[in-house]
Amino acid sequence: MIKITIIGSGNVAQHLIDAFAKSNAVEIIQVFSRTQKPISPLLDSTKITNDWNTLAEADLYIIAVSDDAIAAVSSQLPFENRLVVHTSGSAPLISLDNKNRKGVFYPLQTFTKGKAVDFKGIPFCLETQFENDYQVLEKVAQSISDNVFAIDSHQRKALHVAAVFVNNFTNHLYQLGNEICQENKVPFDILKPLILETAEKIQTLSPSDAQTGPAKRNDLSTIAAHESFLTNENQSTIYKILTQSILNHGKKL
Amino acid sequence: MIKITIIGSGNVAQHLIDAFAKSNAVEIIQVFSRTQKPISPLLDSTKITNDWNTLAEADLYIIAVSDDAIAAVSSQLPFENRLVVHTSGSAPLISLDNKNRKGVFYPLQTFTKGKAVDFKGIPFCLETQFENDYQVLEKVAQSISDNVFAIDSHQRKALHVAAVFVNNFTNHLYQLGNEICQENKVPFDILKPLILETAEKIQTLSPSDAQTGPAKRNDLSTIAAHESFLTNENQSTIYKILTQSILNHGKKL
Repeated sequence: MIKITIIGSGNVAQHLIDAFAKSNAVEIIQVFSRTQKPISPLLDSTKITNDWNTLAEADLYIIAVSDDAIAAVSSQLPFENRLVVHTSGSAPLISLDNKNRKGVFYPLQTFTKGKAVDFKGIPFCLETQFENDYQVLEKVAQSISDNVFAIDSHQRKALHVAAVFVNNFTNHLYQLGNEICQENKVPFDILKPLILETAEKIQTLSPSDAQTGPAKRNDLSTIAAHESFLTNENQSTIYKILTQSILNHGKKL
Repeated sequence: MIKITIIGSGNVAQHLIDAFAKSNAVEIIQVFSRTQKPISPLLDSTKITNDWNTLAEADLYIIAVSDDAIAAVSSQLPFENRLVVHTSGSAPLISLDNKNRKGVFYPLQTFTKGKAVDFKGIPFCLETQFENDYQVLEKVAQSISDNVFAIDSHQRKALHVAAVFVNNFTNHLYQLGNEICQENKVPFDILKPLILETAEKIQTLSPSDAQTGPAKRNDLSTIAAHESFLTNENQSTIYKILTQSILNHGKKL
């Protein structure tokens, strides 16, 4: 069994703890949490510590804290030359303190408090400072996921930016759609099956093959009708820019 | 059995034909198709006609053609005072010719050629010129879907614009994400589970509760890092505008 210590008690830490608890290849030996509150029903509360000096020797320390805190937390660790990784998509490998062997263990998924996640399908993006450490990290990831990738810091940065487009920005488009529904007294629920189908389509079709709508059809009269319908300046600006981008992509093909 | 004639042989027509073929409440008596090619394995090919004058009497005529063609097709019908509906989200009720009783039968979903759709969950937005006709249209919709709504032309216009945001624009964000992946040699497949989870989250959470990411957290240093990462002008413009919109929405709360 690979011995793991988790540092942090937030959303990502909790989901990892629950996933590892069900794995036969790894054992969580400790969790560092400032508050020492119970973190998960699957975690023996005696394993929770808030004292750096009580940290036992583990094969892997996973720092699952906010990006801003990674450097400080990794520099507080009272040991050297052990494998210490963070879970961030945007922080580089070098944000970790030099005294330990560095790595990144980035689950590319959006975690919601209280919503169970099936880790098997979640892509894990791994990077280590030293080649030997990669195998340990890979074993740990493969014990909970079927999608494990070697991704260097530059690639991870690209993935993180792309994730902002397909996740954060997409969700914001849902919010704007919701606004338009509310302003015109139609239930947003009517759009939910469409939202799901849009995401399901992309699992098998390329985004360019899956594209539909007035801009894709170069249907300028529908576009003009939509633009005159939208009186909210923010909605209208975003409508125009995304429509123009779809039109331009059509021309490139 | 309610007798239905479908006019058109495109994507929406084909999906409706397959759905009605399994319904016990309605019967497709004819399909008008200019080409007379076989349309669906579930449709007896003797029911296909390309001659307006052979159209038999039906309780309902569903015009499933492109928006531009609705007016012309409805004016070509060689009869009067029957119930004739179109399936468009953006065309108003009045785009149909005055000689027949008008209605709209709009399935709010994106249809992909060759991909089966479960109609039970698809919202149908109905509108009729005369109250009596609404019941017929409702029965027809309820025979294939559990989500039937009375939606007037103004509401339908709002829904259609909102659908452009949550479907067409969202898919375009997938395309930009794909571009960023390709430019940086990471497989787009890594983002697919995230795309699906983003759409699934919204089925139970409000878009504003589901929002995550640097703009939501007001994490200006990550935003600055992303902006300097993006060298493509179009990607960069869209990143800035959507980020600003999320930041502004955060301030409103």
